[in-house]
Amino acid sequence: MKIIDGGVTAAKGFKAAGMHAGIKKGTKKDMAMIVSSAPCMAAGTFTTNLVKAAPVKWDQHVVYEHGEARAVVVNSGIANACTGAEGYGYCEETAKAAAESIMTTDTVKKEVAVEVEIGGKTVTIGGMCKGSGMIHPNMCTMLSFLMTDAAISKEMLQKALSVDVDDTYNMISVDGDTSTNDTVLLLANGLAENPEIIEEGEDYQTFARALHYINETLAKKMAGDGEGATALFETKVIGAQSKEQAKILAKSVICSNLTKAAIFGHDANWGRILCAMGYSGVKFDPEKVDLYFESAAGKLKIIENGVALDYSEEEATKVLSEKAVTAVADIKMGEASASAWGCDLTYDYVKINADYRS
Amino acid sequence: MKIIDGGVTAAKGFKAAGMHAGIKKGTKKDMAMIVSSAPCMAAGTFTTNLVKAAPVKWDQHVVYEHGEARAVVVNSGIANACTGAEGYGYCEETAKAAAESIMTTDTVKKEVAVEVEIGGKTVTIGGMCKGSGMIHPNMCTMLSFLMTDAAISKEMLQKALSVDVDDTYNMISVDGDTSTNDTVLLLANGLAENPEIIEEGEDYQTFARALHYINETLAKKMAGDGEGATALFETKVIGAQSKEQAKILAKSVICSNLTKAAIFGHDANWGRILCAMGYSGVKFDPEKVDLYFESAAGKLKIIENGVALDYSEEEATKVLSEKAVTAVADIKMGEASASAWGCDLTYDYVKINADYRS
Repeated sequence: MKIIDGGVTAAKGFKAAGMHAGIKKGTKKDMAMIVSSAPCMAAGTFTTNLVKAAPVKWDQHVVYEHGEARAVVVNSGIANACTGAEGYGYCEETAKAAAESIMTTDTVKKEVAVEVEIGGKTVTIGGMCKGSGMIHPNMCTMLSFLMTDAAISKEMLQKALSVDVDDTYNMISVDGDTSTNDTVLLLANGLAENPEIIEEGEDYQTFARALHYINETLAKKMAGDGEGATALFETKVIGAQSKEQAKILAKSVICSNLTKAAIFGHDANWGRILCAMGYSGVKFDPEKVDLYFESAAGKLKIIENGVALDYSEEEATKVLSEKAVTAVADIKMGEASASAWGCDLTYDYVKINADYRS
Repeated sequence: MKIIDGGVTAAKGFKAAGMHAGIKKGTKKDMAMIVSSAPCMAAGTFTTNLVKAAPVKWDQHVVYEHGEARAVVVNSGIANACTGAEGYGYCEETAKAAAESIMTTDTVKKEVAVEVEIGGKTVTIGGMCKGSGMIHPNMCTMLSFLMTDAAISKEMLQKALSVDVDDTYNMISVDGDTSTNDTVLLLANGLAENPEIIEEGEDYQTFARALHYINETLAKKMAGDGEGATALFETKVIGAQSKEQAKILAKSVICSNLTKAAIFGHDANWGRILCAMGYSGVKFDPEKVDLYFESAAGKLKIIENGVALDYSEEEATKVLSEKAVTAVADIKMGEASASAWGCDLTYDYVKINADYRS
């Protein structure tokens, strides 16, 4: 796997353009379009929120009923939730005017791309995302667009995406709120001319690994760039009985406001971490837990068998003052592990979300 | 029901004293003791957190195995979680040295008391509580001590408490984190000389209503005085199919950081409220929801059948600038309703929890 420059247009046949369509005041680009020169298989995962914005409903319609798409239209400045029949109609019109099948969503940021070899051909996957509330704090929106030139069946494309979204985007949280607009779209136009991936063999695994790299990278970028964040905060639970158990524990910690505030304060607050693990609903023995903090500045053991060690507070502050901080909890029950990603809770988070006018 | 002055010593036979025991530096009172002149029936509800502080384990031992108590010892400045066998031993020693049966917990604040007539006798219930992190932000602790002179069986006492805790203390949240120390203790010494309440008749109902008033009042005081809070934020869900459904929806809203920040900003952010209801896991039709904001300054309809009305932003800001703000969501599915209480998310919340050193 080779990490390359570029993002959503790194794969063959994809082009992107930004323009000022007048949705937002001023002259800033407020609409972007990604077009493929060939029809694409389309896969998507969507918010589980009952309250869905009109563009999400439209995207679901395209992915579930058509299964093919050629372009994605991305608006900024409009969340479109709760506009009722009117909003849905607007999406359909935009779609009809623009291309064969269009997916309308919101705005854009952050890119990553990789190349892998599949069946002697170079296959590229590129992606870009818009993180939580960076532009539109109203709806805590997470959007990710992935474009590949792989030849792959719609079934395999959706499978690769659905499985991986659970380990990546679904393991990030900026504020625990689930967006009404969360959307991950993956389009594949087949222009790499690899033998079409139609089953879960070696080629599928190669594709899935590359997709995982893209998704994990974008997910971490989004978490670390949460509203007002000064640090990416990762929690890794190891020694779990199952991946599911490790996931629930890790997620409970990165969603804890008290822990997030402690990370902002560079405080090795093991009490809040154990507390968040304790109310996660998962069974474990608090008196067996080892806890470490880790960052570019080093690794420090804070808790052994549930009891605080006599660590140096100065060293802890150093480890916790980096741009990316990881808490590692070993619950000593098995071999499974999982990571979750979030950010610290800061004055700016409050400022951004309190000053915003709906 | 008559609301009277006083709190935990309002009922006959209860006395309280504060002292400086040297747990905290300085000369501030750091230990309090509440003693009854007669043995008490004891009921309690405790944190569900797997990680339990030593005093909680001791209280459970007293309530579940002895069922009788005569005093409560309350420390400030010590959370006692994760001290292992040593901490538990300390509680036992304190208990033995002080009285027949002693319950050791943390510190104290806020009082309320009521009188009711049961069987021709005046029965008094008084209570006091310590809210989330006002003194000890490490453990997000919620403690409530209730003392009554009612004559009531241990079974009825525990039943009245357990049922009501679900509708009151369990419906508040300051930051979504569940404490390792949450404890509600209810002691009854029988000195009111009413006919002993041994079944769920009229007397039980009278007692339960008085207890509910005490619990709801203390719960709201705790929520509104959450760390750094400037306002009590209540969410009331009406028109629900069941109380359980209404509870889940109401709690989801008051736990939403985005909504809490909007309340701090006095913004009528209906999008965030619908969003939080949407991811609660409860089924309802977003396109049927009516939403109101209500406070001492008036009542304003913001959403009708899922669509934003053309309300005056100025009026909304006025309604939202009070010390207690209520969001009312009518989901038009049935007759059930429930309230949850929280507070706004402020700069001071972040400051308190980021500056704290563990």
